[in-house]
Amino acid sequence: MTDALPAIGVDLGGTNVRAAVVDTRGEVLASARTKVGDDHRPTQVIARTVEVVRRALSAAGGAIERSAGVGVGVAGQVRGESGVVAQAPNLGWRDVPFGEMLAEALGSAVRVYNDVEAITWGECRHGAARSHRHVLAVFAGTGVGGGAVVGGRLLRGATGVAVEIGHVKVADGGPACGCGGRGCLEAFVGGANLSRRLRERAREDWPALLQAADGDSARIHPGLVEQLLRQGDQHAADLFRELAGHLGTVLANAVTLLNPSALVLGGTVLEGCPTLEAWTREVFDRHVLAVAGEAVAILPAALGGDAGIIGAAALARQPDA
Amino acid sequence: MTDALPAIGVDLGGTNVRAAVVDTRGEVLASARTKVGDDHRPTQVIARTVEVVRRALSAAGGAIERSAGVGVGVAGQVRGESGVVAQAPNLGWRDVPFGEMLAEALGSAVRVYNDVEAITWGECRHGAARSHRHVLAVFAGTGVGGGAVVGGRLLRGATGVAVEIGHVKVADGGPACGCGGRGCLEAFVGGANLSRRLRERAREDWPALLQAADGDSARIHPGLVEQLLRQGDQHAADLFRELAGHLGTVLANAVTLLNPSALVLGGTVLEGCPTLEAWTREVFDRHVLAVAGEAVAILPAALGGDAGIIGAAALARQPDA
Repeated sequence: MTDALPAIGVDLGGTNVRAAVVDTRGEVLASARTKVGDDHRPTQVIARTVEVVRRALSAAGGAIERSAGVGVGVAGQVRGESGVVAQAPNLGWRDVPFGEMLAEALGSAVRVYNDVEAITWGECRHGAARSHRHVLAVFAGTGVGGGAVVGGRLLRGATGVAVEIGHVKVADGGPACGCGGRGCLEAFVGGANLSRRLRERAREDWPALLQAADGDSARIHPGLVEQLLRQGDQHAADLFRELAGHLGTVLANAVTLLNPSALVLGGTVLEGCPTLEAWTREVFDRHVLAVAGEAVAILPAALGGDAGIIGAAALARQPDA
Repeated sequence: MTDALPAIGVDLGGTNVRAAVVDTRGEVLASARTKVGDDHRPTQVIARTVEVVRRALSAAGGAIERSAGVGVGVAGQVRGESGVVAQAPNLGWRDVPFGEMLAEALGSAVRVYNDVEAITWGECRHGAARSHRHVLAVFAGTGVGGGAVVGGRLLRGATGVAVEIGHVKVADGGPACGCGGRGCLEAFVGGANLSRRLRERAREDWPALLQAADGDSARIHPGLVEQLLRQGDQHAADLFRELAGHLGTVLANAVTLLNPSALVLGGTVLEGCPTLEAWTREVFDRHVLAVAGEAVAILPAALGGDAGIIGAAALARQPDA
């Protein structure tokens, strides 16, 4: 029974590549990681990936032939079932047939997904939304990513780029976003963009923020805003009010469209800023269509940093997800 | 072969009930309609429905036993597979087990869907989006409704209320909507709300609009704005700019989330106001995420008033849609 065998999950980011051997219940039996390194040529990245997969297998006392296959989550855009990475900005990749290359190097079936798809599937199969078949998951970390499960299947869309919720527009002509557009949710709530804005504000009109970072603007991060807010800082309250307005409205509208039974929220920005999350929920409650809002439970992400490898392994096992 | 038999599609609105016998290619072989009448008790509405189904069958020379079943699209909210109409405001219904009652009265299997789901399925199987498996359809008529097909299946959501795109929020604290919320897309672009606003404007600060309706405010409708716009009216341009901004942004964001290959647009407001549609497309192009925008074709709805009965019949045949 292939189904009962452990599967291998790989999380390929711009900095690290991790692999894990994961059983059918989503338990990580063994894992390994290494740096991607500076050489981003596909052959080199494949060599690193093969290395961590072998190390994880060896630590689990397993063998690739006795696994249910390999699932990979890549920080980039994947072309549907083909395993081709259309774009991976952190690796500088365009149209790399990664799935095929890795399958040949490993001698195993390989399925490739976007990293947020893998994380979403992990939370849906083995994490916060375990019993749910209609799920929206949104992660506000360095960027803002999202994934959705509809009727028990990943929502991939016609060309595999569905649920790019970070690029939903919240302000006409707002700040520039990495995608080339303006006014994207990620331009406001993504940790990288938010921290840049905070550093500017610290220089311009918010000295208390620089002070909270011990005078070192490189140490400014969104969690400091939460800290200042608790001390009664008005700038902090105004900023969180604005961000909660954008994020809460986008979440409400996405739930009005998708009617999920679970909305999973995660990512460092939300986890480090409980007041921002609380205010986001208030805006959400005000803006969601009542019948959709009544049907949804808001759940914090449960698998943390392991969601990607657990989800990728589960996707290896259930390729029609 | 049940599959090759014609199916029966029913469209139950607040005013009319229509039935049609539809073949596997989506051709209407015969149809019949009647008024729902003032007595909205479920038993009475069922009697009317049975009557039009029998008339349509008789006109087609068919029999209920030699059909592939009955599909119904209801202007209301349907609880998933149960056939229970949770709410039908125009009929004053709450929690009516309509599917079960109609099945007993007709002696046939009956499937019940929301009317916009039936219309969307009609356009997807036999209309504008015939070759597409990932579809978003949006209709701006009296209200604003939407439906979606994901991987060849209707997106119904956890409780059957998915794709309520008319209730996506476009303005914080905007005008009140029939749903109880504020700032919904439908409050701006839905024909009923828009016409009410136009009548107010005609009284207050837009005499040219009243004039265009020959002085009769009851005859004011959105098409007159299109007419005035072509005559260089600034109020008309400002209004369409505002409405196109709201509708174009909502469509762009929904496409960024769902990544469909077809976006079907229909409804009397869009069909009667070509400039509004053109400007909406401009806003859409500016706001949609590039990779999602490249993947989608915008298509005018093709089945007109028959979409609902054709789609309902197709749903009778493909109950797992």
